[in-house]
Amino acid sequence: MPRVLVMYGPNLNLLGVREPEHYGTLTLDAVNARVAEAARTLGVEVEFFQSNSEGALIDRLHEARSTHQAVVLNPGGLGHTSVALRDAVAAVGIPVVECHLSNLARREPFRHRSLLSAVCAGVISGFGPESMVLGLRAAAALLQADGQGPRAR
Amino acid sequence: MPRVLVMYGPNLNLLGVREPEHYGTLTLDAVNARVAEAARTLGVEVEFFQSNSEGALIDRLHEARSTHQAVVLNPGGLGHTSVALRDAVAAVGIPVVECHLSNLARREPFRHRSLLSAVCAGVISGFGPESMVLGLRAAAALLQADGQGPRAR
Amino acid sequence: MPRVLVMYGPNLNLLGVREPEHYGTLTLDAVNARVAEAARTLGVEVEFFQSNSEGALIDRLHEARSTHQAVVLNPGGLGHTSVALRDAVAAVGIPVVECHLSNLARREPFRHRSLLSAVCAGVISGFGPESMVLGLRAAAALLQADGQGPRAR
Amino acid sequence: MPRVLVMYGPNLNLLGVREPEHYGTLTLDAVNARVAEAARTLGVEVEFFQSNSEGALIDRLHEARSTHQAVVLNPGGLGHTSVALRDAVAAVGIPVVECHLSNLARREPFRHRSLLSAVCAGVISGFGPESMVLGLRAAAALLQADGQGPRAR
Amino acid sequence: MPRVLVMYGPNLNLLGVREPEHYGTLTLDAVNARVAEAARTLGVEVEFFQSNSEGALIDRLHEARSTHQAVVLNPGGLGHTSVALRDAVAAVGIPVVECHLSNLARREPFRHRSLLSAVCAGVISGFGPESMVLGLRAAAALLQADGQGPRAR
Amino acid sequence: MPRVLVMYGPNLNLLGVREPEHYGTLTLDAVNARVAEAARTLGVEVEFFQSNSEGALIDRLHEARSTHQAVVLNPGGLGHTSVALRDAVAAVGIPVVECHLSNLARREPFRHRSLLSAVCAGVISGFGPESMVLGLRAAAALLQADGQGPRAR
Amino acid sequence: MPRVLVMYGPNLNLLGVREPEHYGTLTLDAVNARVAEAARTLGVEVEFFQSNSEGALIDRLHEARSTHQAVVLNPGGLGHTSVALRDAVAAVGIPVVECHLSNLARREPFRHRSLLSAVCAGVISGFGPESMVLGLRAAAALLQADGQGPRAR
Amino acid sequence: MPRVLVMYGPNLNLLGVREPEHYGTLTLDAVNARVAEAARTLGVEVEFFQSNSEGALIDRLHEARSTHQAVVLNPGGLGHTSVALRDAVAAVGIPVVECHLSNLARREPFRHRSLLSAVCAGVISGFGPESMVLGLRAAAALLQADGQGPRAR
Amino acid sequence: MPRVLVMYGPNLNLLGVREPEHYGTLTLDAVNARVAEAARTLGVEVEFFQSNSEGALIDRLHEARSTHQAVVLNPGGLGHTSVALRDAVAAVGIPVVECHLSNLARREPFRHRSLLSAVCAGVISGFGPESMVLGLRAAAALLQADGQGPRAR
Amino acid sequence: MPRVLVMYGPNLNLLGVREPEHYGTLTLDAVNARVAEAARTLGVEVEFFQSNSEGALIDRLHEARSTHQAVVLNPGGLGHTSVALRDAVAAVGIPVVECHLSNLARREPFRHRSLLSAVCAGVISGFGPESMVLGLRAAAALLQADGQGPRAR
Amino acid sequence: MPRVLVMYGPNLNLLGVREPEHYGTLTLDAVNARVAEAARTLGVEVEFFQSNSEGALIDRLHEARSTHQAVVLNPGGLGHTSVALRDAVAAVGIPVVECHLSNLARREPFRHRSLLSAVCAGVISGFGPESMVLGLRAAAALLQADGQGPRAR
Amino acid sequence: MPRVLVMYGPNLNLLGVREPEHYGTLTLDAVNARVAEAARTLGVEVEFFQSNSEGALIDRLHEARSTHQAVVLNPGGLGHTSVALRDAVAAVGIPVVECHLSNLARREPFRHRSLLSAVCAGVISGFGPESMVLGLRAAAALLQADGQGPRAR
Repeated sequence: MPRVLVMYGPNLNLLGVREPEHYGTLTLDAVNARVAEAARTLGVEVEFFQSNSEGALIDRLHEARSTHQAVVLNPGGLGHTSVALRDAVAAVGIPVVECHLSNLARREPFRHRSLLSAVCAGVISGFGPESMVLGLRAAAALLQADGQGPRAR
Repeated sequence: MPRVLVMYGPNLNLLGVREPEHYGTLTLDAVNARVAEAARTLGVEVEFFQSNSEGALIDRLHEARSTHQAVVLNPGGLGHTSVALRDAVAAVGIPVVECHLSNLARREPFRHRSLLSAVCAGVISGFGPESMVLGLRAAAALLQADGQGPRAR
Repeated sequence: MPRVLVMYGPNLNLLGVREPEHYGTLTLDAVNARVAEAARTLGVEVEFFQSNSEGALIDRLHEARSTHQAVVLNPGGLGHTSVALRDAVAAVGIPVVECHLSNLARREPFRHRSLLSAVCAGVISGFGPESMVLGLRAAAALLQADGQGPRAR
Repeated sequence: MPRVLVMYGPNLNLLGVREPEHYGTLTLDAVNARVAEAARTLGVEVEFFQSNSEGALIDRLHEARSTHQAVVLNPGGLGHTSVALRDAVAAVGIPVVECHLSNLARREPFRHRSLLSAVCAGVISGFGPESMVLGLRAAAALLQADGQGPRAR
Repeated sequence: MPRVLVMYGPNLNLLGVREPEHYGTLTLDAVNARVAEAARTLGVEVEFFQSNSEGALIDRLHEARSTHQAVVLNPGGLGHTSVALRDAVAAVGIPVVECHLSNLARREPFRHRSLLSAVCAGVISGFGPESMVLGLRAAAALLQADGQGPRAR
Repeated sequence: MPRVLVMYGPNLNLLGVREPEHYGTLTLDAVNARVAEAARTLGVEVEFFQSNSEGALIDRLHEARSTHQAVVLNPGGLGHTSVALRDAVAAVGIPVVECHLSNLARREPFRHRSLLSAVCAGVISGFGPESMVLGLRAAAALLQADGQGPRAR
Repeated sequence: MPRVLVMYGPNLNLLGVREPEHYGTLTLDAVNARVAEAARTLGVEVEFFQSNSEGALIDRLHEARSTHQAVVLNPGGLGHTSVALRDAVAAVGIPVVECHLSNLARREPFRHRSLLSAVCAGVISGFGPESMVLGLRAAAALLQADGQGPRAR
Repeated sequence: MPRVLVMYGPNLNLLGVREPEHYGTLTLDAVNARVAEAARTLGVEVEFFQSNSEGALIDRLHEARSTHQAVVLNPGGLGHTSVALRDAVAAVGIPVVECHLSNLARREPFRHRSLLSAVCAGVISGFGPESMVLGLRAAAALLQADGQGPRAR
Repeated sequence: MPRVLVMYGPNLNLLGVREPEHYGTLTLDAVNARVAEAARTLGVEVEFFQSNSEGALIDRLHEARSTHQAVVLNPGGLGHTSVALRDAVAAVGIPVVECHLSNLARREPFRHRSLLSAVCAGVISGFGPESMVLGLRAAAALLQADGQGPRAR
Repeated sequence: MPRVLVMYGPNLNLLGVREPEHYGTLTLDAVNARVAEAARTLGVEVEFFQSNSEGALIDRLHEARSTHQAVVLNPGGLGHTSVALRDAVAAVGIPVVECHLSNLARREPFRHRSLLSAVCAGVISGFGPESMVLGLRAAAALLQADGQGPRAR
Repeated sequence: MPRVLVMYGPNLNLLGVREPEHYGTLTLDAVNARVAEAARTLGVEVEFFQSNSEGALIDRLHEARSTHQAVVLNPGGLGHTSVALRDAVAAVGIPVVECHLSNLARREPFRHRSLLSAVCAGVISGFGPESMVLGLRAAAALLQADGQGPRAR
Repeated sequence: MPRVLVMYGPNLNLLGVREPEHYGTLTLDAVNARVAEAARTLGVEVEFFQSNSEGALIDRLHEARSTHQAVVLNPGGLGHTSVALRDAVAAVGIPVVECHLSNLARREPFRHRSLLSAVCAGVISGFGPESMVLGLRAAAALLQADGQGPRAR
């Protein structure tokens, strides 16, 4: 059974509490419950990780090289500023799907550019918690294709 | 049964033929077959439309106001240049999901900005034909949510 | 009796329906009725044309060379992006007055620049339907001046 | 009878003398005579004010709050540089119509942006002295609408 | 006998009439007569196509895949704005030579960049009608080289 | 007893009336009353000056060289545009504290840069009338330090 | 008694040692002693926190939601680069006052912009250790106003 | 005997006092004494005018149309920001020589561009008080040339 | 018989050796042999000149004023950086055709702009050695036209 | 014996594994072995430190003030984004040599600028593992010079 | 008797021939005759040097260190592009006065910036041949001041 | 014994004389003596070349193709402006190491970008004369690696 790591960057632990006009009212646990449910349907094993520390996220990505086959990553604000996180994504060697709850194109200009997108397999943005579920589906599809078609990246 | 219009902009009629390193080897018909299959699973009725003409795409979007409940739109190159198409998306009043087969962040700088994203519900980019299937799923989720939660946009 | 062509670009057929906070609640027919009324007062014959297609607008502008003495043009979103339409305006040889219903300076940055203005006789922006009526008056004044003063452009 | 203040910024006292290729050969008095004639037709009382001093123009705008119902403002070069004048326009609380004799889009790049436009009701540019007459008409229309429709700004 | 399609974008139907200071006084038919004469010398069969519609130009380019061996393309104003036309050029798979009658470097800044050049075989600009004749010669040379040397692109 | 000049630039005479969402509902006199009260506590003598004229503000700053030991300056819109006012601040030779009622970082981009800040001792922005009181405290602290520590600038 | 958290970002532990020409010669403990003294006068309870780690600062800000009523934040270099810290400030829901010891406008261009300012209540910059004392006063004033006037943000 | 007006903009009244590292230690009167001495040698009559008010400078420039044959203008900080002053220079119709005491290229970036230069006859910058003397010589040369050669502008 | 000077800038002496993926495998002599052959067909006398020194190229261009009727110029890297070479081109008074072997639009951004183009008659780029042959043809056509039509520039 | 700290930022723990086309195939331990060997030759004592956490790197730099005489720093991706790390480098007071394995000028534009370089003694980039050895040599040379010549920074 | 070197960069040998609308109709010899005449009046010995080669100009500037006391430099197009020439000017150690015949602010944008100005004593631009005479006067004044006042730079 | 060419661009002949605060007090001969000494240690034969002429430097680089195995290049000011020199470096086919005596990141912004770096093997900047010695060591290391590992570029 393929293993997918679902990672969240800074401030996503406050989901459901912080700025609900951007991020909705579901807590992180509730979002993860939805993702886990979709994982069962897809026959995928999921693990969740959240940290407010760039270094901890990079460390966890490095470990994922040997523990998982794909990553679904909501980088929070780090996606716009962290070359170090980008380098970690480029280094993991397994497909990473970038997800954002809010539609970044509707927000401040500094959120319109993600440093990560060019090293991720693809990007999903704007569907609230459903962004994470779609991200898992995208990762699952990439893993299926991986065995029989062109490489994910 | 909710009705979703799946639209494609310029040059997507050449899918599977044109630049396979960016767009893969499946033809547009083959991609649509996959989308139609997903539609059956989701209990959604889909219709397909492709045109190389900005004006025809705008006309079709206007019509969709009275014929469909959501749109999945792959705007092709027009997404980067057409304020007129953006205005049409903003005018339709039903949720529009923007999809791109290739990962735009890996391509030329002028493809990094989409004029449409800020008036679409969300964006999906980089998963090849699966982008369209995920787009349909996103649209279906938005329609479900519409009856019981905050508005799609 | 001088003949003036009143042209509208993409999405203006949805006037009164689309985004009333920007464009008001009058339909295009109602706006045109007001313009026609002003035309009668001014002793000018008006004809109306709307299209969502850049090509059709250019074709119509070319024809106007031999059928009208001035043009009042609301280019919609094309004003910000179409060098081809600009070239057509520059080619018609009769004065063209650029009109916008909304005040473009209050909207998104990409609407602050019009490619057409530098080849039009002048610009009127922000007065809702009254923008079109003022545009007709400006065109009429230009035609009057044309017989007896410096050329319109 | 509604009262409209017609204001002119720096250097417009030299109208008819200075750079006729941009501004025409009519003097300021002659232009004002035309505006006054239009005011009689429209049933509007007009007052004229010109100053080369930013401070004097701001002071006069402040006074207009209690003496007039609308302002027609040709800011001259200050429109491109004065945040203070912009703040005064935003502070007056009555509709202000921005007018320019020349077509700014045909001139130096630093004249393409007006700091005032976003706080004015609308903009008229390029019709020579007729710009001021059209500005008065626009102001009159705004005042009429004010009593019975949505607010001018 | 190799077949070359000579295409013209918006407003070039007005050649010889529109802005002669930029485009000269020869009509499109007269230019094409010169090109046809050169074609006879070069042993190349030429076909001409002009449209003011981006969509029609893209459609015709798609068809050229099976009907011609090379394209000589004067995109008019679309060269500066149309990613869709660029994608069509990239998709045709046969060499496309970009031609401009006027010297774009002497005109407005927005004409200094062509979106098409990077996907065309080469660019010729500034020689008036002779630009089209030189473009045909370049295309003929590319076709000759194609059989025996490095690929055209 | 040290003497501090509290200066206000254009439009601040309308405080409490103009755009209360940005500037609050207290009038300038009421704000000054609060500042004067704080001055009494701090053992500082204050004088107030407001003008809508850049020239008058510069003249007053020049005079302050011999009449006061520090200046608290709310430059209004001039802070973003006036090199002349900046030069006057740099020329006075006594510490100047720049104050803004609103939080400039939340407003239009052209308000994000102050030409004055680099020649002032420091900046206080966003606390409404309290910005002026804090500015006076900062000035008082600078004057105290002046006698016994490093120079204010 | 209202509780205020005074936070310092990277490198401020070296205060008094590092680059005294920018930051003065007082150590962090000495600065905090001054702040604590002012807190006693104001009837406010203060707690101090310094970290060189972005993640630890974000974690502490999250906790402050339930432990304090306001934050005085000197973000050090993170203010110019950390969207994650900005998001944390936006998420805390209590007023945050941004403080800088040096006058940022006099330093390198990359220090002229703070990503935090737009989500803070206000900004104080340039008064050395006094910046922190003024920041505490500002926070105290915001808390007083909170009970009886418009919300701090 | 030709008459030349020597004008100074804001803050130049403080010459010799303000920032001597940029402007030297001579007072304005001392500089003018030098200029007057050179005028006697050149057989030119000079008049001096200084103001801190943009409006007063514009008014004086307008008057110079009928009272002088040339202007030597040190605009102070207004040269970098005032379109209105530029328009006044363009409107006077007599040659204006722009002078700066300091070498603007060595100072802050916002001083590297002068809005006036393009409408002045020429520019002299960096020679301290000698800049004004050289400006008078340049004006005298322009007036001599005027009678017998191409126009000054 | 008209005389045309064919000039090459820096590094073109290494043609056929240096970076063949950009410049092909023909040596400069071989390219010149092709150009000479075309010259015979066209009844034009050609002379060749190559230098790695900007100064020598300028000197040769100056001489060409009296020795040749047109210049075909491949400026190499100098085209992107040398205002001095541009001034020499503008000064020669005979038509200059700018040629590049590679398609500059496909290379590094700093090669997308040529300082020379605006003072040349036209530009040919991307056809390898054929660019030089086409350049000669363009020059010949300009010389023919020169006797009977509008001037080359 | 002088002590030099050799520090590595994020992702350099994956050296030899991650993206060998940029970073080569030697592991971090192998690189350090080479550096240690060079240290023995130079009579320098080296210590190694790697972390993926910005905060940990800053903490270690602070400690180096009392434990080492120089630092050789490969900041990884943080060099392009971290003002906090720059401030730490500026604060340590001992010479810091910046090293990069890959040639940053050949990579993405966001890697062309290092925030650290201006506060480091010098920069070495592009020689693979040899960059670190050269960095150590540079540090040793700086330490030697320190005793007898101008200060390292 | 002080010795001043008057240098001219590329293309100034064509003075009086090349583009007279920018540079007038006097030849370089005629201009130099005027400068020599002024030198006699000023009691200064002048030597003239012109070259189209950057290297030769740099070599001559280096020599001037031991042969002259000041330089009057008209750099031609090199002033906008040559860091090497700037470095030579900075290295000579004697005052250099930068002169331009045309008013650079009225010409192409790339001529608005001179790389040399910041290392020259001052700049004179726009007075035709008189620019060189004024430059000599400025140099003479700098040499006089040098003996008795602050250093020229 | 491998042969390395050590080249210096404009103004480096003045080393030790010119601007010692940037370049130190050692003459070029003294620096070269140090480099020669290091060469002996490394078993490398060095030759030195300095020129103020871009053309001469390019010529010498071309020759180095057949006379040397590597180049150590200090381009002086040309590194920031010369595409022609960059093309020569790219054309030589042997590794080129770019060296700068001063730390370019601490100097004027136009020195922060080198056009050469992307075509050199690597860059060393900021260590004074030691930069040249380190550059020789880097070249020697590249030559050693060349025989047994991945290509130098």
